[in-house]
Amino acid sequence: MAPGSGIKILGISGSLRKASLNTGLLRSAEKAIPEGVEFTIADISGLPMLNQDLEGKGPNGVIEFPEVVEAWRKQVAGADAILFSSPEYNYGLTAALKNAIDWASRPPNAWDDKPAAIVGAGGGVKAYQSNRVLRLSGIFLNLHFINKPETQFAIRDPGLFDWSTGDLLTEEGNQRVADTVTALVAWTKRLQQ
Amino acid sequence: MAPGSGIKILGISGSLRKASLNTGLLRSAEKAIPEGVEFTIADISGLPMLNQDLEGKGPNGVIEFPEVVEAWRKQVAGADAILFSSPEYNYGLTAALKNAIDWASRPPNAWDDKPAAIVGAGGGVKAYQSNRVLRLSGIFLNLHFINKPETQFAIRDPGLFDWSTGDLLTEEGNQRVADTVTALVAWTKRLQQ
Amino acid sequence: MAPGSGIKILGISGSLRKASLNTGLLRSAEKAIPEGVEFTIADISGLPMLNQDLEGKGPNGVIEFPEVVEAWRKQVAGADAILFSSPEYNYGLTAALKNAIDWASRPPNAWDDKPAAIVGAGGGVKAYQSNRVLRLSGIFLNLHFINKPETQFAIRDPGLFDWSTGDLLTEEGNQRVADTVTALVAWTKRLQQ
Amino acid sequence: MAPGSGIKILGISGSLRKASLNTGLLRSAEKAIPEGVEFTIADISGLPMLNQDLEGKGPNGVIEFPEVVEAWRKQVAGADAILFSSPEYNYGLTAALKNAIDWASRPPNAWDDKPAAIVGAGGGVKAYQSNRVLRLSGIFLNLHFINKPETQFAIRDPGLFDWSTGDLLTEEGNQRVADTVTALVAWTKRLQQ
Repeated sequence: MAPGSGIKILGISGSLRKASLNTGLLRSAEKAIPEGVEFTIADISGLPMLNQDLEGKGPNGVIEFPEVVEAWRKQVAGADAILFSSPEYNYGLTAALKNAIDWASRPPNAWDDKPAAIVGAGGGVKAYQSNRVLRLSGIFLNLHFINKPETQFAIRDPGLFDWSTGDLLTEEGNQRVADTVTALVAWTKRLQQ
Repeated sequence: MAPGSGIKILGISGSLRKASLNTGLLRSAEKAIPEGVEFTIADISGLPMLNQDLEGKGPNGVIEFPEVVEAWRKQVAGADAILFSSPEYNYGLTAALKNAIDWASRPPNAWDDKPAAIVGAGGGVKAYQSNRVLRLSGIFLNLHFINKPETQFAIRDPGLFDWSTGDLLTEEGNQRVADTVTALVAWTKRLQQ
Repeated sequence: MAPGSGIKILGISGSLRKASLNTGLLRSAEKAIPEGVEFTIADISGLPMLNQDLEGKGPNGVIEFPEVVEAWRKQVAGADAILFSSPEYNYGLTAALKNAIDWASRPPNAWDDKPAAIVGAGGGVKAYQSNRVLRLSGIFLNLHFINKPETQFAIRDPGLFDWSTGDLLTEEGNQRVADTVTALVAWTKRLQQ
Repeated sequence: MAPGSGIKILGISGSLRKASLNTGLLRSAEKAIPEGVEFTIADISGLPMLNQDLEGKGPNGVIEFPEVVEAWRKQVAGADAILFSSPEYNYGLTAALKNAIDWASRPPNAWDDKPAAIVGAGGGVKAYQSNRVLRLSGIFLNLHFINKPETQFAIRDPGLFDWSTGDLLTEEGNQRVADTVTALVAWTKRLQQ
């Protein structure tokens, strides 16, 4: 029971497409999860667009969320670490990912004090800028991101992805994702002690 | 017919709340629109969450969008200038606004070469950071933002907003929004010549 | 006298190295300057590190700058457009470039309302992030940047640069810089009308 | 010997002005340093502007730096944690601070894996944007910043600073700086275990 020590990592892809390359990166991560670490890929497709008018007020000022949002918030709160796979839409985050982030941030903030890492696949500049935008939100969310490695893929690299499934194909690519998982697990243990 | 020369400005609020303060800023802008300028406040609440699986392929590779998305894209394409009112959620954009932006950016990019301005109301840091994130996307979208004035409001300023409606209450506040409209109209004319 | 209409472009490299690749990009730009446009490559190496204690107070509250700073401020103020060539040091600007920018921004701001473009050569992420940091400063400086093309080079591309001189070697690379000059000149004319 | 456990914090002000408000923030921090923690305020005023032509090549490819730079690099490398006090010049870092950062980042990177915090005083938007630019560089430098508290001061707040010395005057202001020191010390211990 030593290596992973029961760490639970939640993988979140910013794309809703079935054959998403970014969701493919999470499947690559899944293959690299060490023994004793639990890894779950979240499904954020059912969340309604955030609108505070959808929130109710329970006793003692506690906010009441739609059922699917409550379940999402619990899933985030129950994770020890987060692995985001963030595409880049117009040099920023996808709305689907920002929506999932924002719902789980409503008081009490479910992201608070969690270690996190980001991988991503994008166009010309890869997904570096959505990464930066996500890190900016992470200041407010109180997420602790690893700095290295920066695991970014150019979607146009020939032979890198299977576009019909989103799978990451190359050994080097999968190794880079695995190195990110290793760094996130080490960082999580360092912060837990 | 001189002053506004038929310029059409589209106002877009990033919040879906009925009593949104940021939507209130657009109503403030509406009052300052000069003669000869047309101003419309968009309704982005009906857009589905962007998922490329919702897109169809028409003849000649033209993308087919859901009907409500097509209407939205036409509304953006028909505008001469854009006035965003952008809240700040977790130091970033709202998902609702990013979603509206991303749908209209799908090829052909409906934002291309348009002048734009941003106003916003937010918490501790006002909405400066969502402003910066929006400007970053603007590089890719090829929006031309005015630099000044920076029209940002602190939602906690006592007496600034009517929280039951979202209306901006102070004369100074409304003047600052009016100055932004003036700057956007001047910038639009400058770019049109 | 038609094409360039007497536009004066000031080229500013963020690197002080003699064989700087970024200074090489400005020499590439120089070759693409159309007739009727004047292009000067600035020398910012002699500026002292900004320290407001070096400033004096003249009559009527006008700030008095060291002589070399005054000359620099005049050079900036006299330009119609700016072409920055910005390296990337630690995902940001070089101190030399920020120093030159800051000196010329002291009241009255010499950058005010000028059109501008950025080219750059950098490491892993090219110089995209120094570009973004420069654009952020540009909001305050009231610079109007072109959005496209994004002219960024990877310094490690084999055969792209002559490292002994900094010269950009490939035809495609030089064409991309030339396209940037063309876009900046067109943007400058559009803003001048 | 329990509380501080011999942690060495290096305080770095981005301003060279004698009466700098940001240097004043470091003096405020000094008063809040707990027993067993060592705090030094760096003097970065003597560093030459970074120019790689100033570097020499020693045996085994080790870079040789000017003497004053070597001393600076040793001071950074010897610290357990960093407290930056970063002004905001044109929505970015001061050249003096970026220069100090860049010199110490040259291989081997003296900042590597160190915990850090940022305080700042600035104009309209306080120094939030220089903070963000510094955090962006921190990714490459592998600095681990605390997220909270965000300790930013508006230089125009009446009575907040003594402008003749730079001293922070209010109890609440000094308490906020003290809270930042407390958070940085706790974060440093957490990362050291």
